[in-house]
Amino acid sequence: MPERILQLLQEKKLPIIKKRLLEIQPFDIAEFLDQLNKKDSLLIFRLLPKNKAAKVFSYLSSDTQQNLSVSISEHELKAIIKDLDFDDMIDYLEEMPANVVKKILKNTNEVERTLINQFLNYPDNSAGSLMTIEYVNLKLDLTAAEALDHIRTIALSKETIYTCFVTSSHKKMLGIVSLKDLILAAPQQKVSKIINRNYIGVNTHDDQEYIADLFKKYDFFSMPVVDNENRLVGIITIDDVVDVIDQENTEDFHKMAAIQPSDQGYLEAGVLGLAKKRIFWLLILMFSATFTGYIIRQYADLLESMVVLAAFIPMLMGTGGNAGAQSSSLVIRSLALGEVKLKDLSKVVWRELRVSFIVGLALGGLNFLRIFYLEQNSVLIAAIVSLTLLITITSAKVMGGVLPIIAKSLGIDPAIMANPLISTIVDAISLFTYFSIATWLINLV
Amino acid sequence: MPERILQLLQEKKLPIIKKRLLEIQPFDIAEFLDQLNKKDSLLIFRLLPKNKAAKVFSYLSSDTQQNLSVSISEHELKAIIKDLDFDDMIDYLEEMPANVVKKILKNTNEVERTLINQFLNYPDNSAGSLMTIEYVNLKLDLTAAEALDHIRTIALSKETIYTCFVTSSHKKMLGIVSLKDLILAAPQQKVSKIINRNYIGVNTHDDQEYIADLFKKYDFFSMPVVDNENRLVGIITIDDVVDVIDQENTEDFHKMAAIQPSDQGYLEAGVLGLAKKRIFWLLILMFSATFTGYIIRQYADLLESMVVLAAFIPMLMGTGGNAGAQSSSLVIRSLALGEVKLKDLSKVVWRELRVSFIVGLALGGLNFLRIFYLEQNSVLIAAIVSLTLLITITSAKVMGGVLPIIAKSLGIDPAIMANPLISTIVDAISLFTYFSIATWLINLV
Repeated sequence: MPERILQLLQEKKLPIIKKRLLEIQPFDIAEFLDQLNKKDSLLIFRLLPKNKAAKVFSYLSSDTQQNLSVSISEHELKAIIKDLDFDDMIDYLEEMPANVVKKILKNTNEVERTLINQFLNYPDNSAGSLMTIEYVNLKLDLTAAEALDHIRTIALSKETIYTCFVTSSHKKMLGIVSLKDLILAAPQQKVSKIINRNYIGVNTHDDQEYIADLFKKYDFFSMPVVDNENRLVGIITIDDVVDVIDQENTEDFHKMAAIQPSDQGYLEAGVLGLAKKRIFWLLILMFSATFTGYIIRQYADLLESMVVLAAFIPMLMGTGGNAGAQSSSLVIRSLALGEVKLKDLSKVVWRELRVSFIVGLALGGLNFLRIFYLEQNSVLIAAIVSLTLLITITSAKVMGGVLPIIAKSLGIDPAIMANPLISTIVDAISLFTYFSIATWLINLV
Repeated sequence: MPERILQLLQEKKLPIIKKRLLEIQPFDIAEFLDQLNKKDSLLIFRLLPKNKAAKVFSYLSSDTQQNLSVSISEHELKAIIKDLDFDDMIDYLEEMPANVVKKILKNTNEVERTLINQFLNYPDNSAGSLMTIEYVNLKLDLTAAEALDHIRTIALSKETIYTCFVTSSHKKMLGIVSLKDLILAAPQQKVSKIINRNYIGVNTHDDQEYIADLFKKYDFFSMPVVDNENRLVGIITIDDVVDVIDQENTEDFHKMAAIQPSDQGYLEAGVLGLAKKRIFWLLILMFSATFTGYIIRQYADLLESMVVLAAFIPMLMGTGGNAGAQSSSLVIRSLALGEVKLKDLSKVVWRELRVSFIVGLALGGLNFLRIFYLEQNSVLIAAIVSLTLLITITSAKVMGGVLPIIAKSLGIDPAIMANPLISTIVDAISLFTYFSIATWLINLV
């Protein structure tokens, strides 16, 4: 569709574009506008029907949002902001520069302004920063019929009407009622009779990862957020939680690759910022790796007298690192999903011992054949390398399985015990093993 | 709560347990039953009220499901199966051994049996294997009031009533109507007037990753699934999609650690199975790493005459691998989230060139100081190592950024271009650079 609309744009056939836009999903229009220049995106944005404009606006990248915000009139901007879902508006304000925020706050009344400032102050990644205030609020003494009538009058401005939240006169959270319950109830039945008081809610300061886990466990579609006095202040809906799950996974992917996590997309972040996020861990790992260098120096004489040993160092270090990375990734992921718990430590050790022994025997055996038969090295060299491989793989896999669990039990994020750190530790182990076995076997024969 | 219930169980206070269970979420009861022995889990399961038993059953691990299935009477089992959501029943049947499946199918009528067999045959990870048949079906000529009455009579057996699916008399998919639209419409308004024909649906054979992306993009709560003749055969709801997102991420985590993906949890899989999933890639990487060994052999004379060079090999290889892994992880994740597209290749190269130059200068510089001042090596050694570091980091980062994009454009999963493979390639590059620079600088001075 983008090509077709671009063509219509060149031909200045705006009425046709306007009609076309009705059939396209808001997300797709936003994606298309993000790719246009300022002038064209403004032109097309203004062709959107009023009720669709706010939805499209909420999906735009913050760059395009900012461009539009400064290009359109204050009147137009006010109309869009009014139609935005409250949580989308907060997300938008968080990204805008001070002058745009000022322009918008100027157009709000005192009460709204206080509320917006309160929401902007919730910590990133907290329930407060995820929630919206656009929920359906019911009272205990309403009948089902009255509740339905109430919902009819306010439905359009609410993020969801399928779960309703019941509070006391002091806004204390009492329970939830689903629209399904209301429809199935006799019209004269009171909300107090169909309320589910056995609900699960979160506090404004709870972390988004914890919230995502609750949604996954209990298959919720929405969830109430209360303050420290158990007053209902907002709700969180599943569509926002889906984004949280992706965010949390991205954070783990980055940590596991020794990058300090960032909320910015790869193409959005500045080059200096990207460099900074990477240097910290590279430095730590680089200086740890020099420790491995000391081991080589210790055995310089051995290496000088038998320089062929050096040729197998990359393979030993690489295979050890990879073997350890496999175990640590499996265990880190299982910890994140709750499949492996702290108490499973001994189970993990026992599994990794057996798995690594099988893997080590297979790889060590194949290596022996290759080094001895194919490459025509001495039995001694083949034995040293293969034995080292077996021991390296075993210790790498056990360490890869154990270190994430130990990290978690110490309150450290297990994700940092991934490939880079494990490889660095395993490198030292494999080299030390290698030279020790070599010295021992050479003295033996 | 588990401790409390265990205690009550020992004291044989079953009526109290029965009361307690009413207040606990089905997921938590299932998690608790999974930890009990066969006898106790059966005892407690039987205390559950009929309507809660099926929900708890659907959350149990397949081991516990199997134990219960063979322990309870055929009559009890039939009652539970009847109350299971259709998609949960299919999931359950897929995990059970043949004798249990037979026992269950025996209790179903011909029509059900055909349907179940059809669902069991949809490929894993397809829309067909995710969907449920428990949707609300409406016809065009109903009025809003009639539709609401219809929903009231069938609501209890449907997975969601909040989106209704409108079909022709030949079951052709026509559009969707939300419960919100029905409630807001005038009672006499026809469904044909409020139907949204501009819906997005999927085919039974579409892949679950594609489906999850649609849910994320458009913030759906449910979605229709049609066959090749556009007949509505089922719907997919967001709670199942959340599990798919986790599954797909797990798959990426495993691939990026050079493990062949598996659907089984870490503690559930057999040891031999785990070993098999890991050996394939370790073997490939091991034999690729021997290539790096050849490079060392080529420069054996140089190494023999200047054995101190060997001491820096682990640090150079490690840092290069880590630097490449950072870029590849960032780009693989951005590709998966759709933030980076194939056409961004040149942008990625240019970013990585600049980032890696900054990182390389910083790390190379620090290394020079350390090797020359702290470790009192010659300027020559310090220069060789630092220059190699700069070149290695630059090429590692550019390759780490580029290879995943190239893989994707060739139709290969970019996730395999992660740490292990990149490290192996970068190892060879860094060693070759190292010895070339060493030879060159030594001849120069």
